[in-house]
Amino acid sequence: MATAPSAKLTPLLKDELDIVIPTIRNLDFLEMWRPFFEQYHLIIVQDGDPSKKIRVPDGFDYQLYNRNDVNRILGPKASCISFKDSACRCFGYLVSKKKYIFTIDDDCFVAKDPSGKEINALEQHIKNLLTPSTTHFFNTLYDPYREGADFVRGYPFSLREGAPTAVSHGLWLNIPDYDAPTQLVKPLERNTRYVDAVMTVPKGTLFPMCGMNLAFDRELIGPAMYFGLMGDGQPIGRYDDMWAGWCMKVICDHLGLGVKTGLPYIWHSKASNPFVNLKKEYKGIFWQEKAIPFFQSVSLPKECSSVEKCYLALAGEVKSKLGEVDPYFIKLADAMVTWIEAWNMVNSPGEKPAMTSLPNATSKK
Amino acid sequence: MATAPSAKLTPLLKDELDIVIPTIRNLDFLEMWRPFFEQYHLIIVQDGDPSKKIRVPDGFDYQLYNRNDVNRILGPKASCISFKDSACRCFGYLVSKKKYIFTIDDDCFVAKDPSGKEINALEQHIKNLLTPSTTHFFNTLYDPYREGADFVRGYPFSLREGAPTAVSHGLWLNIPDYDAPTQLVKPLERNTRYVDAVMTVPKGTLFPMCGMNLAFDRELIGPAMYFGLMGDGQPIGRYDDMWAGWCMKVICDHLGLGVKTGLPYIWHSKASNPFVNLKKEYKGIFWQEKAIPFFQSVSLPKECSSVEKCYLALAGEVKSKLGEVDPYFIKLADAMVTWIEAWNMVNSPGEKPAMTSLPNATSKK
Repeated sequence: MATAPSAKLTPLLKDELDIVIPTIRNLDFLEMWRPFFEQYHLIIVQDGDPSKKIRVPDGFDYQLYNRNDVNRILGPKASCISFKDSACRCFGYLVSKKKYIFTIDDDCFVAKDPSGKEINALEQHIKNLLTPSTTHFFNTLYDPYREGADFVRGYPFSLREGAPTAVSHGLWLNIPDYDAPTQLVKPLERNTRYVDAVMTVPKGTLFPMCGMNLAFDRELIGPAMYFGLMGDGQPIGRYDDMWAGWCMKVICDHLGLGVKTGLPYIWHSKASNPFVNLKKEYKGIFWQEKAIPFFQSVSLPKECSSVEKCYLALAGEVKSKLGEVDPYFIKLADAMVTWIEAWNMVNSPGEKPAMTSLPNATSKK
Repeated sequence: MATAPSAKLTPLLKDELDIVIPTIRNLDFLEMWRPFFEQYHLIIVQDGDPSKKIRVPDGFDYQLYNRNDVNRILGPKASCISFKDSACRCFGYLVSKKKYIFTIDDDCFVAKDPSGKEINALEQHIKNLLTPSTTHFFNTLYDPYREGADFVRGYPFSLREGAPTAVSHGLWLNIPDYDAPTQLVKPLERNTRYVDAVMTVPKGTLFPMCGMNLAFDRELIGPAMYFGLMGDGQPIGRYDDMWAGWCMKVICDHLGLGVKTGLPYIWHSKASNPFVNLKKEYKGIFWQEKAIPFFQSVSLPKECSSVEKCYLALAGEVKSKLGEVDPYFIKLADAMVTWIEAWNMVNSPGEKPAMTSLPNATSKK
């Protein structure tokens, strides 16, 4: 049967982007995303019991990695990949061979804009990544690279080239990304406000990066996108994306890379259990009071000219400064080093040991 | 005749806010603002020929100051107030006795939100000023103090009290606030995007502050709101609000005060002549390339614990650092000192020499 050509237009960056999805369940949520994701390659990171069979709807091109695959590919370095926590998603970033990554949670659905039109979140992320950021000066009319907008009076002309965009952070309609205390206090609050803007998070400013609806340029910032040690065997959860966000932002600021937040929205369908969340977040609520001033003041040596070098320097700082807060940060700092070793092992141009192992993972085209 | 009580509800901060309008023409634009401004006191600063009679629509409570009033009230210190330039508006901030200021240009009209409802810009500014800013950490769901919003997961609890808001910077639908080169290149561009957000400009980040639609807490930041030497006899124009914005932001960052931008929108009716603007802006286009790095790196001594002290220290830095760029900045630095002297003269609790002179200005209730 012939398909109308318009339905099969090649989407942006089709062969240069992987969609990474961490999951413990059947991926029926992909049905709603079919028109937008179908032509891209998916990397599914199966969390928890590897013997469980995860169902992926027909017609998607994907590779699925379970814990056995993680262990086989990384060997002893697999210790840096979290288990029973969506932090395991960063394994997908590591084994991807593409320039760009989009990662989304399996409880996120297609949102609608105020006109009722379904939002192609991936397309908006790609637009965000392919246009510069306004890292060094604030533009009051938001993204000056967007159609119908520009730099306002008083914006220095020398800064209008902007900075290369490394990260695009999307938002959520319906269930907002609140912490457990806020969930407990405001169980019924829903985000209904569609803010039609993309912003650059200015240089020197940290922000809470959520991993639910996130895209990045893997070549520019990939090795900084480590989601830490969370979940099984760890004293903390739900800080995986925050940790990655703090580390990533410090490194982007050091290297002159841009980070955007705002559009696109996805529809976040289900609030997680606030009591379970409080247990996971408990230590993080205290630790973030120490970690954020640390990240606000840490500075990387000038010699750190690559993301890997920056990340290793940051791991050293974490060990010496945050190690005093709790021994967990010493373990985490070591895992940061292991992560970079694993990244280099899988991604070094000569060896590619991971590539020889890859066919063992569940693959479907 | 009895008026329906609902029509005469006392508006927010009625007796604590002055509306400052610089103008060279009859103020017919106030007719459209009548429902929103009628109960407030207006300070009209008449620019240019003082013998010209400016017509103010009936029913407004106002005081009008022309150049003769400025000279009489400030004496030799009147030299710091620009002539033939809307920078003269800052004289209105100086003679106000209120805690809050809203300033608006006479080519700005009431805008409508996407539902078609007329926007009460002043009310939104007041809301912005009366709620804290998120100066020290970025909240991805925008203003967390707004109805239906909050701090997202990962926002440190110790920072949720926020910072007192000193400035609320509103935006413009229709004619965007572009510089002359952008006006020349994009003569037909109109701003039609209503972004339903209020943002804090983070600590350490400068932004281009426009004076067209601006409110501030005069007690918190008033003396920093000097609009510089522009217009008649000066080599530059259209940088008055920019200058005030850079100075004000550096001082707010030093004192821990917040600055917001975003809502409310006004309807900016008429693009100014880009050729005239280019002449005014010409030197500023070069100078801002030096001035912005200066403001990005200047730091104020710890002892500067008041806005006045900060402003005098900043004037010293301007003289020594930017004086090298052009002798204009030496003159400007001196005027900054004169401005503070004038501010203190008019506002010192004991003397109030201005108050004795005030009745001479044109007053109408």
